[in-house]
Amino acid sequence: MIVVLKKDVTEAQIQHIVEKAQELGLKTHISRGVERSIIGFIGPEDVLRVTPLEVFPGVESVMPVLSPYKFVSREFKKESSEIRIKDGLTIGGKKIALIAGPCSIEDYDSLLEVAQKVKAAGATMLRGGAFKPRTSPYDFQGLGEEGLKIMNEVGRKTGLATITEVMDTRQVEIIDRYVDVFQIGARNMQNFSLLKEVGKTKKPVVLKRGMSATLKEWLMSAEYIMSEGNPNVIFCERGVRTFETETRNTLDINAIPVIKEKSHLPIIVDPSHAVGRWAWVGSVSKAAVAAGADGLMIEVHACPENAKSDGAQSLLPEKFAGLVDELSAIAKAVGRVV
Amino acid sequence: MIVVLKKDVTEAQIQHIVEKAQELGLKTHISRGVERSIIGFIGPEDVLRVTPLEVFPGVESVMPVLSPYKFVSREFKKESSEIRIKDGLTIGGKKIALIAGPCSIEDYDSLLEVAQKVKAAGATMLRGGAFKPRTSPYDFQGLGEEGLKIMNEVGRKTGLATITEVMDTRQVEIIDRYVDVFQIGARNMQNFSLLKEVGKTKKPVVLKRGMSATLKEWLMSAEYIMSEGNPNVIFCERGVRTFETETRNTLDINAIPVIKEKSHLPIIVDPSHAVGRWAWVGSVSKAAVAAGADGLMIEVHACPENAKSDGAQSLLPEKFAGLVDELSAIAKAVGRVV
Amino acid sequence: MIVVLKKDVTEAQIQHIVEKAQELGLKTHISRGVERSIIGFIGPEDVLRVTPLEVFPGVESVMPVLSPYKFVSREFKKESSEIRIKDGLTIGGKKIALIAGPCSIEDYDSLLEVAQKVKAAGATMLRGGAFKPRTSPYDFQGLGEEGLKIMNEVGRKTGLATITEVMDTRQVEIIDRYVDVFQIGARNMQNFSLLKEVGKTKKPVVLKRGMSATLKEWLMSAEYIMSEGNPNVIFCERGVRTFETETRNTLDINAIPVIKEKSHLPIIVDPSHAVGRWAWVGSVSKAAVAAGADGLMIEVHACPENAKSDGAQSLLPEKFAGLVDELSAIAKAVGRVV
Amino acid sequence: MIVVLKKDVTEAQIQHIVEKAQELGLKTHISRGVERSIIGFIGPEDVLRVTPLEVFPGVESVMPVLSPYKFVSREFKKESSEIRIKDGLTIGGKKIALIAGPCSIEDYDSLLEVAQKVKAAGATMLRGGAFKPRTSPYDFQGLGEEGLKIMNEVGRKTGLATITEVMDTRQVEIIDRYVDVFQIGARNMQNFSLLKEVGKTKKPVVLKRGMSATLKEWLMSAEYIMSEGNPNVIFCERGVRTFETETRNTLDINAIPVIKEKSHLPIIVDPSHAVGRWAWVGSVSKAAVAAGADGLMIEVHACPENAKSDGAQSLLPEKFAGLVDELSAIAKAVGRVV
Repeated sequence: MIVVLKKDVTEAQIQHIVEKAQELGLKTHISRGVERSIIGFIGPEDVLRVTPLEVFPGVESVMPVLSPYKFVSREFKKESSEIRIKDGLTIGGKKIALIAGPCSIEDYDSLLEVAQKVKAAGATMLRGGAFKPRTSPYDFQGLGEEGLKIMNEVGRKTGLATITEVMDTRQVEIIDRYVDVFQIGARNMQNFSLLKEVGKTKKPVVLKRGMSATLKEWLMSAEYIMSEGNPNVIFCERGVRTFETETRNTLDINAIPVIKEKSHLPIIVDPSHAVGRWAWVGSVSKAAVAAGADGLMIEVHACPENAKSDGAQSLLPEKFAGLVDELSAIAKAVGRVV
Repeated sequence: MIVVLKKDVTEAQIQHIVEKAQELGLKTHISRGVERSIIGFIGPEDVLRVTPLEVFPGVESVMPVLSPYKFVSREFKKESSEIRIKDGLTIGGKKIALIAGPCSIEDYDSLLEVAQKVKAAGATMLRGGAFKPRTSPYDFQGLGEEGLKIMNEVGRKTGLATITEVMDTRQVEIIDRYVDVFQIGARNMQNFSLLKEVGKTKKPVVLKRGMSATLKEWLMSAEYIMSEGNPNVIFCERGVRTFETETRNTLDINAIPVIKEKSHLPIIVDPSHAVGRWAWVGSVSKAAVAAGADGLMIEVHACPENAKSDGAQSLLPEKFAGLVDELSAIAKAVGRVV
Repeated sequence: MIVVLKKDVTEAQIQHIVEKAQELGLKTHISRGVERSIIGFIGPEDVLRVTPLEVFPGVESVMPVLSPYKFVSREFKKESSEIRIKDGLTIGGKKIALIAGPCSIEDYDSLLEVAQKVKAAGATMLRGGAFKPRTSPYDFQGLGEEGLKIMNEVGRKTGLATITEVMDTRQVEIIDRYVDVFQIGARNMQNFSLLKEVGKTKKPVVLKRGMSATLKEWLMSAEYIMSEGNPNVIFCERGVRTFETETRNTLDINAIPVIKEKSHLPIIVDPSHAVGRWAWVGSVSKAAVAAGADGLMIEVHACPENAKSDGAQSLLPEKFAGLVDELSAIAKAVGRVV
Repeated sequence: MIVVLKKDVTEAQIQHIVEKAQELGLKTHISRGVERSIIGFIGPEDVLRVTPLEVFPGVESVMPVLSPYKFVSREFKKESSEIRIKDGLTIGGKKIALIAGPCSIEDYDSLLEVAQKVKAAGATMLRGGAFKPRTSPYDFQGLGEEGLKIMNEVGRKTGLATITEVMDTRQVEIIDRYVDVFQIGARNMQNFSLLKEVGKTKKPVVLKRGMSATLKEWLMSAEYIMSEGNPNVIFCERGVRTFETETRNTLDINAIPVIKEKSHLPIIVDPSHAVGRWAWVGSVSKAAVAAGADGLMIEVHACPENAKSDGAQSLLPEKFAGLVDELSAIAKAVGRVV
């Protein structure tokens, strides 16, 4: 931590800060400049993060030097992590994971149909919501446990791994029973109770980025999960909120190289929510793979006209299959496979 | 709902849309223009909101005509709502509510000291967190139930109403027992499970705006609470996230007249989180009252240097008392009292 | 300037940075920490700002310590500046400036009518565009020089000072001849050629904040004008661009106390562009005065239905007069007058 | 244009709107719904765009149906445009254009060195600023005409086409004389005087997106240039401003498929400004090509430590050459060549 002092700081004020540091078990190092003097704190920054140095008399500004996260950082673990999903299936290795399926689980037959088609096209994991976070209380809220059972059955029948969103600490146990991977949605990225609860399981967690979460906050949310003992976290960039209204969100493609540099954890991309219209999904899916994403999570529906949610951004199974061919060529160009 | 058709739409495509409308029990009204034709849907828009008309062949864009919220709207209830907090205390009437207290409840003595001082200055409600949503898992997480008990005791001793944040559906019951008002934090504005759970109680709920929530989404979150049967919702604007980094957030002062126009519910402002530095709290507090806010929620700490969270934005009790005097003059200028 | 070094920095890399500093005439001060070492640079930061220290081997990050602006800063001039507009009229003193008028100058009669009415209500300056920055090339582009002549005549007839937007370096001379104050629009806040050109005149400049300009960038744009020799700069907050679509922009009310702290220059507010609808103008105008603004620039049109631009956000003269009464009460509450 | 009427609209109010439409030469079509009635206007929307229908009594909201741009739209021209730069060089065809060079032109020798190296690596156009838009008046402002002469000479010697930024209407003529392509920078995207001035030439214009410009505003700025008679416009996405601070800007990769759908004009990407650090340039460059970009404009400097601007985001010539190899593989995967 570095403290920049005001131009007119007094010696007594400097002394007061130095004493506070000593009280916290830290050493200080004062550097006197022409325009400003600064104090460097030597020792663990954590004790300082909760000390409001900004309010000490004579302080102009405070600058942290170290990252506030540990377990998720590349400094903590140099080699990239490959998260095991189930036998023979990982995320973060050479093979790019393709996760596909409808926004909501609607019934057994339609889920099975989509599952079989996306599997044939190359997907290895099935997505689908049983508990749906809908902006309106009057919109379809999901099938709940009934949906989980359907997903479980379809997963077993097709051999696909399964992923569904958990919205409430009280749902963790039941979802844990039926499904292979937890998804934390964008709206819950800083639902810290929920993060801790999935952190107590051993199951992989796909952590979507919050609508206006900084990369640092996102890394900290992963740290919440890891600090509870669950190391199996996968980041999922799904677009951030900006001033642009033509697209549903703005896919932050920059996030891929930055997360890869800061963390050893894998990162996948959800192009469907990032653009909001099926016609644009292919273009940004290819971009994500080219930029280094470890996987894609794409909404696919056999009949978007009848989808109970997010129909506008769902691909038809045939379009998905065509896209996988294109992705395969891109993956090869960056030394990977789909 | 209005559907704008593509220039080259065919009659068969129009017919397909009209049939879908009939199936949903709606009438249609086609208006043929020079450049584009449009279809208006007559009847309740709700059934359409979950029908992805955008994916129907021939459709260029879809425009909703009606607001998606009901109970919270001024159309539903013309006169402004005055929410009863406890005997002799309401929010939304002529008197502007002053809510003050520390970010976190730290111990009985310090809470009592602040409570007595803010009460003497004119506050009628005490704020303080027992469960803290912290970005880092390594920061102070709050005293939990112990904190609730302290708050309850201090509230009874001083006669101040009390408010604290609820972060988890599993905390609703215990907080309901000890505290007068629920606070839903910015990070949980779209934690729909939590909204429903507080909606099942009768206790007032202060609903903070999400960091990047639109006014429409905020109104919808209030609708979630009201649709479960709890009409006692109070909006709290606490700044939104923008590109600006000098201040912690950007207080959206425009939100006050807009919410007042769209909804009958009261709106208060949290200037402390909106600016992030105590020196700027006074200026925007006065602005909020001048703009028509029904209350203010301000962080006050007897010794910000020792605060376990948010010290940089906390006012000293003396500064708070001085501010109340200034607010009193502003309130009078807009026909209200503090 | 402070340079944070990478954990695995070598002595040779540190030496390389130290030599670069010496070459630039700066001293360095190295502080060796447990997790990271840092180098502080002692001497003028300006020479460093153009040196990309980030690319030097071993460097993790670079943190500036000093503000990049001088003449505009409160450190440079402690007391607030009061900018003289014309005889007996200043901005930045006890009296809050009320600037009113139509978006565009449309013809002599309508401008005179509005000018007389806003003057009667208390305005001291007349606004109106002769050169209009319109998003579409097919929209009304303003009357040009003809408009300037009309404004000049109306100004002389009513005794109101006048302000109009300058969009192009080639317009500076002609506007200088006819009008009392230059306005730099939001879209040109970083049109550096234009800033320099008005900086070469002696005429007051109202500098609107760019749509997504940080406060620091805004201060730097004022520095451009002042560094050319023109000290008469007035900031104008007119709302920034955010994700919110209900209002035209988001008025950054926080900007008022922050600019007042960082700079000695006055700041006014344009509530009309900040909200985009006349019904909300009054509320945020009162907020601006309560927060400490030195003036308001409000769009007023005698017949908004016929306005050639921005009709939706224009007040009728009667509404403006009513608002001035309310503002007068607020001004009194904060120790000022309108 | 569609006007949604208030619930309590009167017949007289409807009549007033209908008469206004007739006055403007438009037909109206009224559709009476259960909750709301609407009026559709049949005829050219342009006359309506400047009529503030929002202020007419009884009007709730106004929705435009048509796009406000013409010449730039795909509706106007179905096939994609291939812009001729000079003999044998176009942008928008099968070959992806690689534009490279330093941020600023510093001197003849260093520009020639970089030009020869990037040409050898596969670049076909040389970038470099002679007039620099710098946030601070105290930073390097460019060599001016001297820089243009250097660029001209280096262009002739190497056979590379040349591009440089124009910041002021008064610079158009001189830049036209020395350089092959005009660049309009992000800060000037809505400098309408400048857009009109380059629109009067025949020279290609690379139009960078404004920091917080919507896609619609960007298209309108291109329309300004085309409406003056110059059809040779190339869009350049360079990142938009968001809340994220880890990267300099946020590359809006979504913009590529959207612009390709709305317009026939080519779009290139500037990855250097979009990320702000050289280490991340490669990843997003590959993403841009995979998403369908028609070219890349990349900052390359032989010695970033000595760069007078933007050193942190400049690639070394060797790194650029390595990147071109990778881009070549991606281009092939999407059916193109570099």
